[in-house]
Amino acid sequence: MGQTILLNNRPEGTPNLGNFKFEEQSVGDPQEGELLVKSKYVSVDPYLRGRMNDTKSYVPPFEVGKPLTSGIIAEVIESKHPDYKAGDYVSKVMPWKTLQVITTEDLHKVDASKAPLSAYLGILGMTGLTAYTGLTEIGKPKENETLLVSGAAGAVGSIVGQIGKLLGLRVVGIAGSDEKINMLKQNFNFDAGINYKTTDDLTAAIKEHCPEGVDIYFDNVGGEISDAVLYHINKYARIINCGAIAVYNETTIPKSLSVQPFLIKNSALMQGFIVSNYASKFEEAIAQLAEWLKQEKLVYTETIVEGFENIPQAFLDLFDGKNKGKMIIKI
Amino acid sequence: MGQTILLNNRPEGTPNLGNFKFEEQSVGDPQEGELLVKSKYVSVDPYLRGRMNDTKSYVPPFEVGKPLTSGIIAEVIESKHPDYKAGDYVSKVMPWKTLQVITTEDLHKVDASKAPLSAYLGILGMTGLTAYTGLTEIGKPKENETLLVSGAAGAVGSIVGQIGKLLGLRVVGIAGSDEKINMLKQNFNFDAGINYKTTDDLTAAIKEHCPEGVDIYFDNVGGEISDAVLYHINKYARIINCGAIAVYNETTIPKSLSVQPFLIKNSALMQGFIVSNYASKFEEAIAQLAEWLKQEKLVYTETIVEGFENIPQAFLDLFDGKNKGKMIIKI
Repeated sequence: MGQTILLNNRPEGTPNLGNFKFEEQSVGDPQEGELLVKSKYVSVDPYLRGRMNDTKSYVPPFEVGKPLTSGIIAEVIESKHPDYKAGDYVSKVMPWKTLQVITTEDLHKVDASKAPLSAYLGILGMTGLTAYTGLTEIGKPKENETLLVSGAAGAVGSIVGQIGKLLGLRVVGIAGSDEKINMLKQNFNFDAGINYKTTDDLTAAIKEHCPEGVDIYFDNVGGEISDAVLYHINKYARIINCGAIAVYNETTIPKSLSVQPFLIKNSALMQGFIVSNYASKFEEAIAQLAEWLKQEKLVYTETIVEGFENIPQAFLDLFDGKNKGKMIIKI
Repeated sequence: MGQTILLNNRPEGTPNLGNFKFEEQSVGDPQEGELLVKSKYVSVDPYLRGRMNDTKSYVPPFEVGKPLTSGIIAEVIESKHPDYKAGDYVSKVMPWKTLQVITTEDLHKVDASKAPLSAYLGILGMTGLTAYTGLTEIGKPKENETLLVSGAAGAVGSIVGQIGKLLGLRVVGIAGSDEKINMLKQNFNFDAGINYKTTDDLTAAIKEHCPEGVDIYFDNVGGEISDAVLYHINKYARIINCGAIAVYNETTIPKSLSVQPFLIKNSALMQGFIVSNYASKFEEAIAQLAEWLKQEKLVYTETIVEGFENIPQAFLDLFDGKNKGKMIIKI
């Protein structure tokens, strides 16, 4: 028997513990090609909130009465697949279960000798891959260009900025508190930061900190911040549409500044993506990120909470800002 | 001596003949590397209206007291450049002058034996190149995909649709009158057309005519029409931002539906461009367009007005819809 966490009902507004339900479930035996795995580290991220709604969003909604899912690092207990053996650590998006049988589709092995296991959920997992592939594949950075990052103090944004610096860019971040701005500059090597909450005139602030304009805009937020950026994009600018948290909790999509005139005037590009589009680059990306990590050229922060039973509370704590960096539950 | 047409003053609202001024000017002799040329065909296009304003637009404004410019086919009268000789026909964006000395920068020879000279201002000129390079370089069409074209009955749109059909796409056009919709289907080989002015529900009409969604959207208009299209784009859709006539005459850029959620959800791309970005493809494009034209697989319409003195009136007539297809002045 194993434990699982189901969506009990859909939250209205801020989610609470009543939205989740724990259940004992029998696990069964792996069939040919399958693995029995035990969860070790579970990732919780703000984007899961959107999937708890029944509205059309970027990803299909969770179903009431079914388990929630997220990125999990698990240990192989029993293998019926030639490429895996008991004791291997693997990573994929899986249901919130202590024990489960999985297929090897979209599964990745992770190497506990190269980095802490939890890192494979963050900087060496979806977070790092999103930052790396978005910036390199869409942003196509060239040395000395200016990279502007919104949501810069977030898990993805803070890695994007560090990678940008390693690739020789001038990096400017937009975030929502002076503490975050200090962190961008002191911990994450950003050249400059803009606190959008205390800036009177965001377009003027962008102009001041990006005096040569914006060549690459890594956009985690959308909304009014991204409107302001449009006035400062350079010819052939690349806008990476990674997230639009400004509109995640809206039931109808709001209006923003018309982007077409800016894109035409500057022969600029906007490209939406999800990290799995670049699966063919994951091996190269992980190798590069692990190398930088080993050389201590990349830093990351994480908050680790212990216990499967604490997954819902850890998720809720994200909305109170109780985490520093990536929030992870250790089972 | 030659004649030239200057911007006399900036129009407010609809332009009129008083905005233009004719002047006699001496011409001078070509220096080493230069050519003396005589204008034969002059192109006038709606986008020139934007350049008559003193507001920031996609291209710098015309200056009061200086000549207006547009695409011109000219005959070489005297050459001081080894690659050109008297009697050659050449094409480039030049000042509105009967006779002038030009450099060979951005200059193209045109071959009067392969197509009528006026075609080099339309289907074998900027218009055709814009349609061909935008659709192929940004749209990257694959057989059986659905191409939706806004401003479909315009000079660029009608060529985009025909090229789309030649490349094996399902092609749907949006235009503003039933006469234009009939023309799309009967003359330009579109599979279907949507009259946005008489359609109660544009999103429903797009869904009806693009039952498998929109893979490529060639956008000449922006604004509300493009908002409606966003609801129907497919995964990996490509949106080609060629024009945004819906906002050309606005002094402040209006708001539209936020594009970010749609781009992220569909891993879709928007790319603004001007035709000169793809100069390296012009030779290939012209060869292909000329071949299709010879095979009568592409059709185009044009309105030819005679006389240098009639350039301003021909331009004004564009806004009264007095032209059919490309408006050209024969000198």
